[in-house]
Amino acid sequence: MSASALNHEAAELGRVHEEPAELSRVLVVGTGLIGTSIGLALRQRDVDVALSDTAAGRLALATELGAGRIFAAGEHFDVAILAVPPDAVPIELIRLQRLNLARSYTDVASAKAEPQREAERLGADMSTYVGGHPVAGRERSGPSAAHADLFVGRPWVLTGTPLATPQALADVRALAEACGAIPVSMTADAHDAALATVSHLPHLVAALLAAQLVGSDKTTVALGGSGLHDTTRVAAGDPDLWTQILLANADHLAEALTRFAADVTRTVDDLLRIAAGDRSASSALKETLRLGVAGRARVPVKRGEPAAGFVTVPIVVRDAPGELAAVLRALGDAGINVEDVRVEHEPGRARGLVELDVRDDAAAAVIACMRDAGWEVYS
Amino acid sequence: MSASALNHEAAELGRVHEEPAELSRVLVVGTGLIGTSIGLALRQRDVDVALSDTAAGRLALATELGAGRIFAAGEHFDVAILAVPPDAVPIELIRLQRLNLARSYTDVASAKAEPQREAERLGADMSTYVGGHPVAGRERSGPSAAHADLFVGRPWVLTGTPLATPQALADVRALAEACGAIPVSMTADAHDAALATVSHLPHLVAALLAAQLVGSDKTTVALGGSGLHDTTRVAAGDPDLWTQILLANADHLAEALTRFAADVTRTVDDLLRIAAGDRSASSALKETLRLGVAGRARVPVKRGEPAAGFVTVPIVVRDAPGELAAVLRALGDAGINVEDVRVEHEPGRARGLVELDVRDDAAAAVIACMRDAGWEVYS
Repeated sequence: MSASALNHEAAELGRVHEEPAELSRVLVVGTGLIGTSIGLALRQRDVDVALSDTAAGRLALATELGAGRIFAAGEHFDVAILAVPPDAVPIELIRLQRLNLARSYTDVASAKAEPQREAERLGADMSTYVGGHPVAGRERSGPSAAHADLFVGRPWVLTGTPLATPQALADVRALAEACGAIPVSMTADAHDAALATVSHLPHLVAALLAAQLVGSDKTTVALGGSGLHDTTRVAAGDPDLWTQILLANADHLAEALTRFAADVTRTVDDLLRIAAGDRSASSALKETLRLGVAGRARVPVKRGEPAAGFVTVPIVVRDAPGELAAVLRALGDAGINVEDVRVEHEPGRARGLVELDVRDDAAAAVIACMRDAGWEVYS
Repeated sequence: MSASALNHEAAELGRVHEEPAELSRVLVVGTGLIGTSIGLALRQRDVDVALSDTAAGRLALATELGAGRIFAAGEHFDVAILAVPPDAVPIELIRLQRLNLARSYTDVASAKAEPQREAERLGADMSTYVGGHPVAGRERSGPSAAHADLFVGRPWVLTGTPLATPQALADVRALAEACGAIPVSMTADAHDAALATVSHLPHLVAALLAAQLVGSDKTTVALGGSGLHDTTRVAAGDPDLWTQILLANADHLAEALTRFAADVTRTVDDLLRIAAGDRSASSALKETLRLGVAGRARVPVKRGEPAAGFVTVPIVVRDAPGELAAVLRALGDAGINVEDVRVEHEPGRARGLVELDVRDDAAAAVIACMRDAGWEVYS
């Protein structure tokens, strides 16, 4: 879905009674990837950001990176953001509220309904709290992986309850917007059902798939290519963190995995029929693959990957310092802005293939520019 | 597994009675991605490559790209390579053998046992045929996606039967080596069992996972991030081609999917127990995720991705033509060879993040070089 479609979606779903909010002082509790990235994004907009963390080294690194200054007792903030592990959210929310640290409170946990119920049960003030989930991440974690652009153009789900005040809703929406994200209002339950489908199920399936390799011999595993690589990438995620995430959304995930399991079981039956010589089952298998193509076509384009409207121009270069720079310099001299560059490189080989992803309408100019400069273009 | 480990593996598994072979004339039947890439690789080594294809346009493009010349009747070759769809292999093999077109024959299909049985059943000469599977590919297909480096450092499985002559075995091994691949000798059955685990199961699971999105609303799908993107990427593959591939390996795939299904069903039970309030099942869920981490750790590093021993250095640049070239020029001037460059870019924004993947031991020099040249380095 495009940013404008998301904005439209957000407008449809959003609440209309929110006040405009000005954020000038923000507290970030927890300086991992998300907390530090929020700090970096807000500092770019000159918001005063105070940081707090129980891990002193992590906190020092986040301040060093420019994500904010260290929190001092007695301050008061427009918004306090709980960028802490999901199961710490309810207790931490109540602790901050009792200290009256901020006008509004939010969190960044990727499961919303259960922490929200738990917070309410434990006596949190639900009028100043609006749950949040910036749907962005990286393979790496910790403040060193943070960057100010992490949320740009990404959805940031807001799950305010009917108890939340217009001020709290506006504050947390302003926070998401200040980070460059697209606010999307949903109920906590709708959020969790959606995340079960697009994040928690894929994670669990990747783990179950990767686990099949545990008993394989090394010759088998060595035959794995990019398909195996990509389908299992997220399975490397921290099991402790992911257990927490999946536990907090166990009911929706159980539903999603039950549906998936039924499809898997049906496909096992199809394959057993095929293996037994019943080739009529092959149309069922093909239909499964067709549904896969249809589902895949709905997946948003990945940031940093060429979108529709881009083409890849492969160029052969010498494997020498400065060669890639020379390619890009030639393009820059020709006034061409390369949207995305991916380099395939095998150390020790005499030549390398550079793949330039460029807009359709610039491809002819790129190819001409490269050939004029003496490079071999496979196109 | 490293190239040297694979070589060792290959030596362990390989036959010792093969003759050295010289390839000077090769026929490639089928000018898709694989056939054209083989042609390009062999032409770099001055092998005379003749191309043949029933699709005239594809054939013309492959010759235009430099993959070889058009086949003329009456010629004789050292090796004929069937780079045709898997189910066309047996018939096509027999056709070429009856024309006595080559000394040795091979194919590139990703399932080996059934085509081999079918060829034998139909009366193919199994003394001159050695099945092959270059384990390499791209997301795109057709001759325009081909390149000479496709097979470099990748395994190329050889599945010669006991009926194959030393000459045929040596010819097909020489072909794999001439393309820069690492020959790995296996039985057709061992190959198919391995591929079921590392390729066919991941493909089918990705399709089943992507299919879950077909009925989802657009707000749900818009929340998908890079995890959803990567776990479903291969599901975009051509359903007709993949149905053929999976059908040809249905028995091994049925076994692999049955094991996977049992793990999925067990995990559904764990989640249902957790959702019902039995938190003791969470240790079973965590164990599933841990096995996923262990399995994922066995997956070979993807070509073009930073291997172990590389670090990512994030640098903020202006979004302007020539800016990226300037970064790389500065590195080239400092004598630093950047192994891999990935650029994240959001069109229309003032600044962009460039991520440079460099060897551990070069990271300090890269960071110093970038900072000296005035760029902001997030490290």
